[in-house]
Amino acid sequence: MGMNNNRVEHFDCYDQQQFQTIIKIQQQPDIAMEIHKVELPPQRTTLHKLKQRLSEIFFPDDPFYRFKNQSCFMKFILGLQYLFPIFQWAPQYNFHLLRSDAISGLTIASLAIPQGISYAKLANLPPIVGLYSSFVPPLIYSLLGSSKHLGVGPVSIASLVMGSMLSESVSFTQDPILYLKLAFTATFFAGVFQASLGLLRLGFVIDFLSKATLVGFMAGAAVIVSLQQLKGLLGIVHFTTKMQIVPVLISVFKQRDEWSWQTIVMGFGFLAFLLTTRHISLKKPKLFWVSAAAPLASVILSTILVFLVRNKTHKIAIIGNLPKGLNPPSSNMLYFNGPFLALAMKTGLVTGILSLTEGIAVGRTFAALKNYQVDGNKEMMAIGLMNIAGSCSSCYVTTGSFSRSAVNYNAGAQTTVSNIIMASAVLVTLLFLMPLFHYTPNVVLAAIIITAVIGLIDYQAAFKLLKVDKLDFLACMCSFFGVLFISVPVGLGIAVAISVFKILLHVTRPNILVLGNIPGTQIFHNVNQYKEASRVPSFLILGVESPIYFANSTYLQERILRWVREEEEHIKANNGSSLKCIILDMTAVTDIDTSGLDTLCELRKMLEKKLLKLVLANPVGNVMEKLHQSKNLDELGLKGIYLTVGEAVSDIASSWKAQP
Amino acid sequence: MGMNNNRVEHFDCYDQQQFQTIIKIQQQPDIAMEIHKVELPPQRTTLHKLKQRLSEIFFPDDPFYRFKNQSCFMKFILGLQYLFPIFQWAPQYNFHLLRSDAISGLTIASLAIPQGISYAKLANLPPIVGLYSSFVPPLIYSLLGSSKHLGVGPVSIASLVMGSMLSESVSFTQDPILYLKLAFTATFFAGVFQASLGLLRLGFVIDFLSKATLVGFMAGAAVIVSLQQLKGLLGIVHFTTKMQIVPVLISVFKQRDEWSWQTIVMGFGFLAFLLTTRHISLKKPKLFWVSAAAPLASVILSTILVFLVRNKTHKIAIIGNLPKGLNPPSSNMLYFNGPFLALAMKTGLVTGILSLTEGIAVGRTFAALKNYQVDGNKEMMAIGLMNIAGSCSSCYVTTGSFSRSAVNYNAGAQTTVSNIIMASAVLVTLLFLMPLFHYTPNVVLAAIIITAVIGLIDYQAAFKLLKVDKLDFLACMCSFFGVLFISVPVGLGIAVAISVFKILLHVTRPNILVLGNIPGTQIFHNVNQYKEASRVPSFLILGVESPIYFANSTYLQERILRWVREEEEHIKANNGSSLKCIILDMTAVTDIDTSGLDTLCELRKMLEKKLLKLVLANPVGNVMEKLHQSKNLDELGLKGIYLTVGEAVSDIASSWKAQP
Repeated sequence: MGMNNNRVEHFDCYDQQQFQTIIKIQQQPDIAMEIHKVELPPQRTTLHKLKQRLSEIFFPDDPFYRFKNQSCFMKFILGLQYLFPIFQWAPQYNFHLLRSDAISGLTIASLAIPQGISYAKLANLPPIVGLYSSFVPPLIYSLLGSSKHLGVGPVSIASLVMGSMLSESVSFTQDPILYLKLAFTATFFAGVFQASLGLLRLGFVIDFLSKATLVGFMAGAAVIVSLQQLKGLLGIVHFTTKMQIVPVLISVFKQRDEWSWQTIVMGFGFLAFLLTTRHISLKKPKLFWVSAAAPLASVILSTILVFLVRNKTHKIAIIGNLPKGLNPPSSNMLYFNGPFLALAMKTGLVTGILSLTEGIAVGRTFAALKNYQVDGNKEMMAIGLMNIAGSCSSCYVTTGSFSRSAVNYNAGAQTTVSNIIMASAVLVTLLFLMPLFHYTPNVVLAAIIITAVIGLIDYQAAFKLLKVDKLDFLACMCSFFGVLFISVPVGLGIAVAISVFKILLHVTRPNILVLGNIPGTQIFHNVNQYKEASRVPSFLILGVESPIYFANSTYLQERILRWVREEEEHIKANNGSSLKCIILDMTAVTDIDTSGLDTLCELRKMLEKKLLKLVLANPVGNVMEKLHQSKNLDELGLKGIYLTVGEAVSDIASSWKAQP
Repeated sequence: MGMNNNRVEHFDCYDQQQFQTIIKIQQQPDIAMEIHKVELPPQRTTLHKLKQRLSEIFFPDDPFYRFKNQSCFMKFILGLQYLFPIFQWAPQYNFHLLRSDAISGLTIASLAIPQGISYAKLANLPPIVGLYSSFVPPLIYSLLGSSKHLGVGPVSIASLVMGSMLSESVSFTQDPILYLKLAFTATFFAGVFQASLGLLRLGFVIDFLSKATLVGFMAGAAVIVSLQQLKGLLGIVHFTTKMQIVPVLISVFKQRDEWSWQTIVMGFGFLAFLLTTRHISLKKPKLFWVSAAAPLASVILSTILVFLVRNKTHKIAIIGNLPKGLNPPSSNMLYFNGPFLALAMKTGLVTGILSLTEGIAVGRTFAALKNYQVDGNKEMMAIGLMNIAGSCSSCYVTTGSFSRSAVNYNAGAQTTVSNIIMASAVLVTLLFLMPLFHYTPNVVLAAIIITAVIGLIDYQAAFKLLKVDKLDFLACMCSFFGVLFISVPVGLGIAVAISVFKILLHVTRPNILVLGNIPGTQIFHNVNQYKEASRVPSFLILGVESPIYFANSTYLQERILRWVREEEEHIKANNGSSLKCIILDMTAVTDIDTSGLDTLCELRKMLEKKLLKLVLANPVGNVMEKLHQSKNLDELGLKGIYLTVGEAVSDIASSWKAQP
């Protein structure tokens, strides 16, 4: 209702001048014979072009537009606000906001504590590291981050990947110190990588992980993680460190004698409980707190349960002693030379990219819901700096977590203060409550992890991909099976390669359309798509649907000559009027390189030998520029280039009429 | 004159129906208010689409069109002719053609013999292998090849690359047998690779070596080769086996005591002679035989000279004894297991691609001059099979050579029989004339090589690249310096990577144009390019110049929102009429993937929150299809999609007018 009113108001300020323009368009006279010249874009120097190109590549969002026409002092304030978004909202912060943030902060803390412990186990790290990681990074993020709803902490995917990549070379049980060192170092490199992507404004790198790739990757990772949890869920002691599906399944069934029924009963009980709460929250979003509180409830319940039966059975594995106290510094544990440096860097790179992708995507999702924008490059710097800081304070890779942010959003978080509240709750836990987790059984952590990752299997998205875009689906399946059967980096690599291949394929084998005139108009369109579009006799009008590059210039030349040959055969068979002119509609040819220019030139010569005229219609700005610079324009001549297909057809046809 | 007459004839058969169509277009009434529906392309099954897509990828030239509607016998004959083009022209072969072919065949033989010996030295192979390679492969090619003018034999680039790649691991002087084995094996793999590219119809792989890349690469290779020849030209005995410019130059100046003035005088004398003849032929193409005969003349002259002074000086290095007789079989020398197999395969791959690129390009060049077409995939099979055969008969990598083909063409070759004549001349040489080359000095071979490769430095092409396309020039320079300072495969790799990066960059950061109406027409064009194009108030019309993919969807969304923000600020500053509608011209959006679809959907929602309407104009067939499949079309609604920008503007504006 309110929206409608607004719209009407908008229409009221509709002014005179606008009507005039529109009426002019509508009342245009018969324009067919008026031929417009195709113009060159205004001349620009190479430096100017380079500057513009670079600013489009690195500063597409024009981050400095706020600084224009401001005093020095304002510039300083704005700069401070730009670097530390906390200064943007802190002056307006009030008790009302604090109350919302406190509620949501405490809610996510109840989720963050069991998640932290569980995910640390997923990365083969001591559970306490997961809690450390829920303390320092959220504090840093609340200073630097531009998203209001992002709940920061360890996430399943990055934990899994770090665990799997490091465990392939170093075992935590055999050399815990080295493993910890490598984990912190990988976190450091992940942070450096993320921050430098942001600093160098290369954020588009993460765009190359397409949604299709991520759907497959996440599903694969979820399956792997869930299967890995069978270790905890079945109470197996000796388990493979490999991550592929085959060795994991073999390991599960080989160690059947280690299965413990007490663990299994407890595990599946809590799993059923957690899945039910998850289902409830999915059905009724208002009951989000049911699934948010369930993990902590399970942890408390299972801990009490195990504490009660502690003298009767030792079959249920427990977390054991956890050290009390704050994050110890770990900058002295960073590992900068030695045989595993390459491993740490590689792990940092992969987990860095993955956690960045998740963090940015989650931030954008919730920002879109509340209609504000998240600056990708700034987010990268924030996430990167929080990981660098984390690596020096015994934290491993953290980012914006989807589950935590969803709970945060639903619980009514208003600013990143909710992250500070959560960190404070974690602080209290670290300082005073650690002994309470002594009897927490590992099996409940496994159940929490499974419940968390099961939501990552988005079969509906995969099904939609299959319906809409087969090649996207292929990329999705490749990353799914690649992760499942080979390894996380290889699976991701294959999927990215397929995505890039798809782009290249589209360029290498572009569509060529045959255009026809829609009767009664100047519009020319694909005769396959528009039944009423009719081909103009003596003309062959082709629309090239791609830039003309080295990668497709040979193909285009041969394919166009084949079109001409087929058209001539068709005319011969039907006794039609002979072909005289080929018009290339260049509207979709958004770029051309030197190979393409040569091809056009050669094509023109070859067609001339067949007594056919080649005419270009509507070349866009930079194509015109290049045609001009390469002297092709002079060869085409004034009558070789038209603004629209319609003008080309009517002008050329009337020139034939004029001739005897 | 004849051409003009022909044209007039063409115009005479201009028929009635055609005029009618054209007149209809010209006399169209005021069409502004007639709104056309955007249609979906006709429904096709996935299988049908896949079939069409695959046939475009693998059979763009429709090689089987000749077989349609033919009897079985004719199909057999046509098939035979397809596989062995010799059957196409052999029945019409006559004495007149033979005379032309004999003259050109003997002319290229006089070039082929010294070239064969020289290029074999370039590959660090015994000179006789170069002659062998000018005997068997041309015979095979004359059966299978579809180019009439291609002169087949060893070429400088492939010889250089093979020599440099093999010499890095194995030295000919230390282990000649192994080196020979590897050379033949690399030739074998090159042939297998080439033939399978042709068989699998993957010819477009070589298109990824763009002209810009090749210009840089060839120039770099030419510089390297010329510097390497300083060994022969200065008479140095101990020379580096490395190929980079720095060690070669160091080696030249370190071995100053080995410089021999006799060699230097002779070398520079012949070099001057050869360069002069080359210059004459370049200036007057009719005197092509001057440069064609010069190498043989130099060889004969220098051999006689050395023979005369043979007792006075031993400072001039000579070829020495060459075995008489035909190609010995070498299939027993192929090396299929052992530590150097990977090297042989890699060398085969690189030389295979390079020689293929040269062969195909040369074939196409001369075919275009005589207006016939060369079938790329068939040529690949021919070149591949001739190399496989060559590897079993003591030949190394051969292909169509530019210098030889040019001489062949100028000498009036009519069919590939000229290759047979050349092979026969080489046969006679092999059988009877080998002892005559005993005293041929190495220095004259060095001079021949330098003269041959100096033509590969095409600085004019590089200059044109600089003028027309800076990124192409960058790719060119990278391959030039990469070859010069690092190595041939790395240089090529960098250049290909830059070329692919350029395609990806265009997709990742596409242009967005602001369109305006050209007064008095329905045409909307870039306001930057067309000064008279005026923006329509209350509308923001943007043209996206690229397919919408995962790689650019985030960018496009943010960039479009920035356009909207800037437009609103501009309107506010100028008190214009407020923005109400964003029209996206989708003409150049030739493809869309699932990320792109999501982006469009999200963009529409975000604009709706700002009370702005998003409308698409002219989506092409497969974009419409995907919009439909993903249900985006239903959300956009009937009034959200128009055939042209003009119709969208007039319809939406009149709907505003109709509203209060």
